Amino acid sequence: MSNPFFKNHGPILVQDILKLLKLQIDSDKKNIELKDIKDLYIANNSDITFFHSKKYKEAAKNTKASFCITSESLKNELPSSCVPLIVENVLVSVSQITSMFYPDAINDDFDNSATNIDETIFKDKVNCGKNVLIGKNVSIGTNCKIGHNTIIEKNVSIGDNCSIGSNTIIRNSLISNNVKILDNCVVGKHGFGFFPNKIKNLRYPHIGVVIIEENCEIGCGSTIDRGSMSNTVIGKNTFLDNQIHIAHNVKIGENSIIAGQVGIAGSSIIGSNVRIGGQAGISGHINVGNNVEIGGGSGVIKNIPDNTKVMGYPAKNIREFLRDNK
Amino acid sequence: MSNPFFKNHGPILVQDILKLLKLQIDSDKKNIELKDIKDLYIANNSDITFFHSKKYKEAAKNTKASFCITSESLKNELPSSCVPLIVENVLVSVSQITSMFYPDAINDDFDNSATNIDETIFKDKVNCGKNVLIGKNVSIGTNCKIGHNTIIEKNVSIGDNCSIGSNTIIRNSLISNNVKILDNCVVGKHGFGFFPNKIKNLRYPHIGVVIIEENCEIGCGSTIDRGSMSNTVIGKNTFLDNQIHIAHNVKIGENSIIAGQVGIAGSSIIGSNVRIGGQAGISGHINVGNNVEIGGGSGVIKNIPDNTKVMGYPAKNIREFLRDNK
Amino acid sequence: MSNPFFKNHGPILVQDILKLLKLQIDSDKKNIELKDIKDLYIANNSDITFFHSKKYKEAAKNTKASFCITSESLKNELPSSCVPLIVENVLVSVSQITSMFYPDAINDDFDNSATNIDETIFKDKVNCGKNVLIGKNVSIGTNCKIGHNTIIEKNVSIGDNCSIGSNTIIRNSLISNNVKILDNCVVGKHGFGFFPNKIKNLRYPHIGVVIIEENCEIGCGSTIDRGSMSNTVIGKNTFLDNQIHIAHNVKIGENSIIAGQVGIAGSSIIGSNVRIGGQAGISGHINVGNNVEIGGGSGVIKNIPDNTKVMGYPAKNIREFLRDNK
Repeated sequence: MSNPFFKNHGPILVQDILKLLKLQIDSDKKNIELKDIKDLYIANNSDITFFHSKKYKEAAKNTKASFCITSESLKNELPSSCVPLIVENVLVSVSQITSMFYPDAINDDFDNSATNIDETIFKDKVNCGKNVLIGKNVSIGTNCKIGHNTIIEKNVSIGDNCSIGSNTIIRNSLISNNVKILDNCVVGKHGFGFFPNKIKNLRYPHIGVVIIEENCEIGCGSTIDRGSMSNTVIGKNTFLDNQIHIAHNVKIGENSIIAGQVGIAGSSIIGSNVRIGGQAGISGHINVGNNVEIGGGSGVIKNIPDNTKVMGYPAKNIREFLRDNK
Repeated sequence: MSNPFFKNHGPILVQDILKLLKLQIDSDKKNIELKDIKDLYIANNSDITFFHSKKYKEAAKNTKASFCITSESLKNELPSSCVPLIVENVLVSVSQITSMFYPDAINDDFDNSATNIDETIFKDKVNCGKNVLIGKNVSIGTNCKIGHNTIIEKNVSIGDNCSIGSNTIIRNSLISNNVKILDNCVVGKHGFGFFPNKIKNLRYPHIGVVIIEENCEIGCGSTIDRGSMSNTVIGKNTFLDNQIHIAHNVKIGENSIIAGQVGIAGSSIIGSNVRIGGQAGISGHINVGNNVEIGGGSGVIKNIPDNTKVMGYPAKNIREFLRDNK
Repeated sequence: MSNPFFKNHGPILVQDILKLLKLQIDSDKKNIELKDIKDLYIANNSDITFFHSKKYKEAAKNTKASFCITSESLKNELPSSCVPLIVENVLVSVSQITSMFYPDAINDDFDNSATNIDETIFKDKVNCGKNVLIGKNVSIGTNCKIGHNTIIEKNVSIGDNCSIGSNTIIRNSLISNNVKILDNCVVGKHGFGFFPNKIKNLRYPHIGVVIIEENCEIGCGSTIDRGSMSNTVIGKNTFLDNQIHIAHNVKIGENSIIAGQVGIAGSSIIGSNVRIGGQAGISGHINVGNNVEIGGGSGVIKNIPDNTKVMGYPAKNIREFLRDNK
């Protein structure tokens, strides 16, 4: 994934990683420096990776990473070029190591670097309301509008001809041209991702961003969380109505239309030309194909193939739904 | 409908309308000036109207409009006094022509005319918080309160004894006496109405307003969109809980009670003395009668007669629901 | 219940209470002063109580209150030490008398006592954003962050190491250490509690508070209403996702995880170690046990015992749900 915003604090010595994981290895590799943590597919030999589910067996066999956080039962799938680091809970350990590389990606406290737009280079460039705040590492294109009390926190790129409403908060987001984001939205905060823990849940870092492609519209009161290890993406010319919640790592295709109060749970992938009726919910890690119509109020708990109309909870073929509910 | 807020840029010459629609007519009527675009029922001979569905056949026969945007298959229903303008997509053309009359009704960019209330005539009249902004064409009655950071954008009339919360945004709305609108609401923005289009969806104008009648209460975080060609109306003494979404053109009667997170889709009509439980959803273009009770979580996808209790998804008679789910 | 915030305007003379209720009693007790209104269990002989449902018969028999608002049909359950005040609608009368003791607990108009934090003793103590407002009777611990435009209205206690986001509004709340409340939340407003009335609904006072225990996290755009006669409680280390609505008097245990857009209606009690999927709804006055899992989109309309997994609308055992929906 592209990661334009979170500063990588690597390289990190293998021995420092071992120390954090309370591991020891018999290897002269302890003094190697690792540059980043990446998934099995894109890691190269200067990276550490992770392998937590048999689903990724093929990727594990071919990984180029030189270290891999994994479990006793999975370690034998890795190539000999990759040193397995055996831990009790792979994802918790991944979270800890990712936090070493990206310590800024865990907390989402308010951005106290943000200053009034009148004190920035955007003063004369942007048609803006009262009390607009701009954080560090922000770029804004030509012919943009930003409403009253809106806070563009750190790490935001806004294209040309965009219109941002009032009382909206954005961080860690890449916003293309001709995008409208209406009032009272929150875009780019970390998702609801953490490891439950009796005393105090352990937040994992969210190093992804929110990408909103051109010509999109985001309705009032919506929340779009940034990704954890990948990005959250809203495709070109997709329109979201009011009070919608898009969780971390969700990817929505182009020309889709999503009505009010819909919620899409983490890591689901929605195709292009999809229409989702009001208040429908999509479970996490679901694939919804292209040209799908999902009736209002539906609860989608399994994958939906292309060119399908579904309705109901759980969602099924709409003919079946209407027949069953005559 | 009454349209107190959007300036009509008419009259417009018939030939300018023809040009936009890429039409030609053999008629000496090209130089006629049309004053407004109205529906079949209320248009008179200085107006243009539109006719897009057989449902409105009777109204079409009796329309007084002198021009009508319609389709080949419907044109013969119109009286001889009305010149049909045959287009491929009636509603898209209506949107384009409405935009000619009301160019200000398409975009809902933030109101950059709004100024701090301390610089307005309301300074000493209203009990207001910090950083309250007031747009043009706003009136506020006696004994009103307006909370911190709230933005009363252009075209708002507020009655006497009203209490508006903090961080709330209102535009294009008529608010009667003794109304409470709590925190973080957005009232009067355009609805989720547009024509889908591969490259860039085409927004249609919303020339309606939001009308909130006396003694109503609107809960925190709610959104109420204004109407497109009619108004959105909340009847007297109707109470809305938190996080409710009311779409464009919805009309709710008097003394109704709507619990948290309910959503009502576009153009639905809800009666008086109606009770709707939390998270229920009402599809668009539905009629819900008077004295109806809708159970929490219900999904209403067809009309509900007076004096009925319904529950379920799809909503059915509550006895039937409880029997089927024993 | 503890009631740290609402000033009790008592003692009140019995004859003033009688006058408001339009009652007369043949008793020399008219000149007694009553200190407070409390429920049957905790009232003592200087208090007035109320008894409106047979459910509370046992408590009524043993109440120590010297006066009780009740109905003709219930009065004989009371001990002879307690003078019954017979009214037509017990709860309406309770509301009226509670309003006499706690007149400040009815309206939730914005807090116009709030001033910029820079003018308060918190100026150098709190890491805060621009335009932060602080009301009266607020305490804030060490090492706290408060984001831009956030309003800490009157009667709020915030512990150590808390992080409050931007555009958030809090009142009448006790917030423990290490709590995070993200952006655009509203915490501590009155619930959706009132007596319907043809001309103008009658709001009843909300003298409870919101208690958020340590290590909790509250997601963006959430609303948590304070209690009416008891408190609303979020237990230790419980995490709420975005756009959640928690109604008045709800109590949630420890270590629970509640996903986006969930709604919990008034007075429901949720156990510890409970997981609730996105968009699920819990009806009012429901008990959900410990270690319960509620699937996304479920509608819970009856009590759920400990250690149960449920799903569906109405929610049932998850095996049954999956079997019925194969």
